[in-house]
Formats: sequence, structure tokens, C-alpha cells
Amino acid sequence: MDVQPPASLRSPLRLPHKALMGAGPANAPPRVLHAAAQPLVGHMHPEAFRVMDEIKEGLQYAFQTTNPVTVCLSCAGHGGMEAALSNLLEPGDVAVVPLNGHWGARASDMITRHGARVVPLELPLGQPVTLEAAEEVVSKHRPRLLFLVQAESSTTTLQPLEGFGPMCHKYGTLLVVDAVASLGGYPLWTDRWELDVVYTGSQKVLNAPPGLSPITFSPRAMERVASRRKPCDVYYWDIMQLGDYWGCFGNPRKYHHTGPITLFYALREALAILASEGLTASWRRHEQAALRLRAALERLGAKLFIEDPRHRVHTLTGFTLPRNVDPVAVTRTAMIRHGVELGPGLGPTAGRIMRVGLMGVNAEAWAVDNVISVLEDCVKNPIPNSSL
Amino acid sequence: MDVQPPASLRSPLRLPHKALMGAGPANAPPRVLHAAAQPLVGHMHPEAFRVMDEIKEGLQYAFQTTNPVTVCLSCAGHGGMEAALSNLLEPGDVAVVPLNGHWGARASDMITRHGARVVPLELPLGQPVTLEAAEEVVSKHRPRLLFLVQAESSTTTLQPLEGFGPMCHKYGTLLVVDAVASLGGYPLWTDRWELDVVYTGSQKVLNAPPGLSPITFSPRAMERVASRRKPCDVYYWDIMQLGDYWGCFGNPRKYHHTGPITLFYALREALAILASEGLTASWRRHEQAALRLRAALERLGAKLFIEDPRHRVHTLTGFTLPRNVDPVAVTRTAMIRHGVELGPGLGPTAGRIMRVGLMGVNAEAWAVDNVISVLEDCVKNPIPNSSL
Repeated sequence: MDVQPPASLRSPLRLPHKALMGAGPANAPPRVLHAAAQPLVGHMHPEAFRVMDEIKEGLQYAFQTTNPVTVCLSCAGHGGMEAALSNLLEPGDVAVVPLNGHWGARASDMITRHGARVVPLELPLGQPVTLEAAEEVVSKHRPRLLFLVQAESSTTTLQPLEGFGPMCHKYGTLLVVDAVASLGGYPLWTDRWELDVVYTGSQKVLNAPPGLSPITFSPRAMERVASRRKPCDVYYWDIMQLGDYWGCFGNPRKYHHTGPITLFYALREALAILASEGLTASWRRHEQAALRLRAALERLGAKLFIEDPRHRVHTLTGFTLPRNVDPVAVTRTAMIRHGVELGPGLGPTAGRIMRVGLMGVNAEAWAVDNVISVLEDCVKNPIPNSSL
Repeated sequence: MDVQPPASLRSPLRLPHKALMGAGPANAPPRVLHAAAQPLVGHMHPEAFRVMDEIKEGLQYAFQTTNPVTVCLSCAGHGGMEAALSNLLEPGDVAVVPLNGHWGARASDMITRHGARVVPLELPLGQPVTLEAAEEVVSKHRPRLLFLVQAESSTTTLQPLEGFGPMCHKYGTLLVVDAVASLGGYPLWTDRWELDVVYTGSQKVLNAPPGLSPITFSPRAMERVASRRKPCDVYYWDIMQLGDYWGCFGNPRKYHHTGPITLFYALREALAILASEGLTASWRRHEQAALRLRAALERLGAKLFIEDPRHRVHTLTGFTLPRNVDPVAVTRTAMIRHGVELGPGLGPTAGRIMRVGLMGVNAEAWAVDNVISVLEDCVKNPIPNSSL
């Protein structure tokens, strides 16, 4: 052998239990994790197609849509973002993207890579786009698409979505919505609000392991895909082929890639849990947990990053602590001393704010009370960064 | 609610146990499946980085390479193929691709989507490329890359690789190798044979669940990536950014996407099993199982699809049955009556041949004997296709 077997693989894997109270992944319930350990079936077996059909129905419920093209991509949420953009855009197309946090910047990077042009909508960090501001830019540039992030996780900002669909459609523009950090935790009505493509990640409010990106395409979005001059520039994202793998067009199932069947098992169980609780109850539970968290944070002297309560995301709360507490030291202390993950900011907010995520099974009063008592301890007695 | 919770999600998931003796996924050992049910940690936690480091070491062993850029993509093997091609190619570049089975056609589709040009090397189905034929085309076209598939699973052909690396490098060409159906089951020496990019899938010989594509980039391949005029046209495949997520360049770890941590757990355990058996023993076990299978098939009157024994893949054996037995009826009978998956051909061989896969834990004498007795029964007494 040129390379010897590594010593690190001689002992079996051991992992700690943690409370994942950051920006996600959130903790997954035992039913979901156990599902992932069920025996493998092949990607073209009838059992696999049944699981995929059940996922599709569960996702149509979660997205509140009757779109036949509702599938699950075999990749992270970043792949969902890139699949949405690359299926709709061709070189030379224009996309309008608000730049008010990390995710607009990320989407712009992808759009540029795929040869399209970004018209940025510059905004202060943490400020959502108003319908009026969006219409001004959309009516002027008539872009192929407008990109919005319902829960901008880097700033913990809620982007209102109602009205944007009809406004876009007036100008022949498609509306793409990132619901990675919100789907299941905040109202989203794909059909009622005329959203054209919506995607999320399996590992946030849905409480499945990471690795899947649920996505839905409206008939209007599919018309656009069908009228492309050339097929999608990425085989792996091509929704025309993926649609046949997922049985969306009434054709016989066609092999596109080998789906991650054990992750499908887990997501199927996660969606069953959501269906059994009900969306309305889940939305309410996330709201109540967020209100409890915010009240406790204000008692601690923390300042919420988003001033206007109407613009605050329930699934993720950003704040600064009083007396120049170092958020990095606090998050490290929480992890090392308590096994609790808190978010230290992301991109433009890295090191500036802290973020507490209340997603899925963690959107409960007991979890809020636990995270608050951990915060109190870590603020009083942080482990200095220099000693780590 | 516009869409009601689906009735199909009211009952919990139940799955049968099957023997996966087709083209993959193969069965995963309990240790591997149990690992996937371990509790989640975050994608940027030290425990996640340790698992990723151990995967990297295990992959360097499996690929027989010291390449620092040895990572695991968060997608199926098809994603590995597209990542290899799209990182190396830019619009206008030329790639030489043998067309002697399904996978050359698939790679050509991807290459074209990314704006590069394919110079096809037309060959009869099931015939590997000779070094001489490859040199003729490479020396004439001086392409950016030559694409080879070590185990052409659609035809069950073994492509020799020795000598192709130095030949390519004489002409400034990179050598990309698909080892999806072979890695771990047949000798492959990335460094010794000067292979530039090699990728595989987690679900074949490695015996992990599907959803990951291990990949390695030689320093020569990374020089090419660094000298691109523009970054990779797909954010999700960009090896410069993925390399920082996997800690390949000595920089601090950087968030690129949320890795599918439970699949990482499973692959880590699968690699630990491979390291503990040893590559040489694994290669020999696959060879012995294949020889046992071929001898039994010939006793049954089957005709092996690849005539020259030197061109037969050990992991997957293609054959036709005597007396015009319908391979589709046989594979359906094996599945329904015995819970045994056999491969009915793929792409150009669909419906023409049958394929038996002996990968990972299934490359054992007992599994061969079982598949042979199932075959005997299904040939004698197939369930007619019309009754299914």
C-alpha cells in the first residue's frame, strides 16, 4: 500500500448529545433518526417510490400548494437555492435581489456564476423589502425573477411575502422564495400568495437531518423552464429530469440519480410529525416560544437586533447583550460547559450579534427557559476566548 | 388550510429487508446504519470537523492518494461526476469521452451543458479504450481532459487505467476517472497511476447509504482550477470553497453549505470497516466472489456479456440467460418472490442483459450461492410481466 489505513478509524464513532439552539440544524426527534437506520431499498424500487410519493404529499401540505412539481433535491438547502435560480435563469437574464443580509449576497454569487445579471436592491441590514420598493425596481427592469428570503437568518429579519406574487406577475416576473429557516414555523401560502419557486432545508423547522432540499415549482415557473432556449446548465438540478424521477409529469419514473433513501425515510417521518401536529398549531407554537424568549431576553438586558416587532422572525432571534459582552465567548462557553449551541451571527452579523434558534422540537417553553438559564451563566462567567 | 394533511402520513414508515444484488446501492452493515441514527451535531462543530477529517483520511486510504484535496460531496455520485467536470472545464474547452456505455453518454450531456465540447471516442458496447486509441485522440485534440469509467456498470466492463495518466500528462491533458462502481472492490492507485480527479458513490462497494460522493483532486487538477478565467459555474460544486469547508488548504474552516452530518457518520463507519479489512483483502474477496458467480452462471447455461475475462468487472457481472428467458420477468420474480434485487440492464443494455452486483458485504460465497439459487427458481418459474 502507498497509503496505510488511518489510525483514527480504529475506534468506533462516538457523539455527544447537544441542544442545537442556533440557526440550524435543530435537533431531530428519535422517530426521525431511527427511520434513517431502517434497511436500504433501491432507488427504483416500489417502496422507494411510495416513500417519495408520501414526501411529495407531505411537502404539498407544508408548502400549502397543489403544484405537481413538488420534490426534494438530494442536496443541502444551498443546492435548493442554486436549483431554483439555475432552472429559471439563462445567460443574459436579469434577477432582482435585495442585499440586506447574507443570503441575498449568496444568491447574487450563484446568479452571476450562471451567467445572469443581478440588479441589487440595496437596503440596511435587517430591513425587509417593501412591496412599493420592489415594484419600483421590478417595473423598471422587468427581471426574469425577484428573489426574497422569508426568514433572513443572518439578521433574523422576517420578509413579508403577501402581495409580491401578483405584483411580480403584472410585469412577467417570477417570484422565488427562500424559506429555509421558516417553512413549518411561520405562515407561508405558496398557492394563495402566488409564489413561483419555494425551497427549504430538511434540517431546520422540519427536524430531519440535513442533506435534503424540498422545493416546489408553480405551473408558471414550469412554463418558463419549458421555454428555455437550452436545458438547465446543471444536470443535477434539471427539474425536467428530476420531475420524471419523482413522477411529477405522469410519465413512467426515470432514473436521474440515486436518491439518498435513508434521508428520504427520515424526512418522511418528519413530515408525518408535522402533519399530525398541524401547520396552524406549529406556527402558533413557534410564535409563543419566540415571544417567551424575547421577554426573557429583555429581562436580561439584551437588545433585540430587529427593532420593529413585525419584522422579527419567530424561528430565530438576534440580539446583543449589555455591557459589551463578547458574543463569541458566550457561544463558546455555552457549547463547552453546557452542550448548548447558540448562533454567533453569520456573514455581516458575525461577531456582532447572537442568535437563538427555536425550530421544530426546540420551539417549546422548556427549551426557552433552558437556553435563558444557560445564557445567564455564560454572560456572568464566560470562558475567555484566549484560553480555547 | 388550502391543502389538508395527507392521509398517507398517518401511519409510520415500514420497510422490508432486501438483498441488494443489483448495480447498487448494496446492503449496508448494521454498524453503518446505526451510525446514521446518532444524534445530530452542527456542521461547524468540532465533532463534525473531526468526523470529516477521519472521512478524509479514510478516503485517502481508499483512493490510495496523499492529495490534500480529498473530500466528500453532499450529493449522489452523479454530483461527483458533474463536480469533476465543471471544476476542470470552461466554455470552449474540449473533453475526450469514450462512448461505449451509459456513463460516457451521461458525462457528455453534462460537459455540453457546461458549455464545453465533447470529442467522442466511439467504441462497441462493452469494449474498453486501449491506451493506443486514447493517445491517438488526445495527441490530436490536446483536450482539457480525458474521461474514463473504471467499472462501466451498464455493460459491466473493466476499463484499464494504468498508463493513461502519464500519457495524458504528456499532452497537458487531465485524467478524470469515474470509480463509482469499483472503488474498494478493484485496485485503483490514484497517485501511482497519476489520476487527476477520481470520484465514487457512498452506496456501492463502500456500503454506506446513498447521498455522498467522495472525490479527490490531484495537485495538477488543483493548478488547473486555480488558473480558471472564472470560478466554477456551480457554487455547490466549487472545490475552492469546498476545500475550505473540508480544511484542505490550511485555512480556517469556512461555511460552504450544511453537510449531511448523519450520512457523514455512516460513511465514517463504512470507511472504518474497509480500513480494518484492508484494501488488498477487499479486492481479493471481490475477485473470488466474482469468479464463483461466473462459474455458477456458466453451469446454469448463462452467457457472460463481456467475453474477454480481462475486461470483466468483479463488482458487477452482466450475462444473458439461455432459451430467450426474459430478463425483466426474472428480475421482477426475484424481487417479488425472494426480496432479491437483480439488475435488468441500464441504458443501452436495458432489457438485454441481466446484472448481478457483488459489492461490499455482498461479495461473499454465501451471497453468490443464494443469488444463484434464486436465479434458478426465477428462470424455471418466472411471474409473467403481464400479470404484474
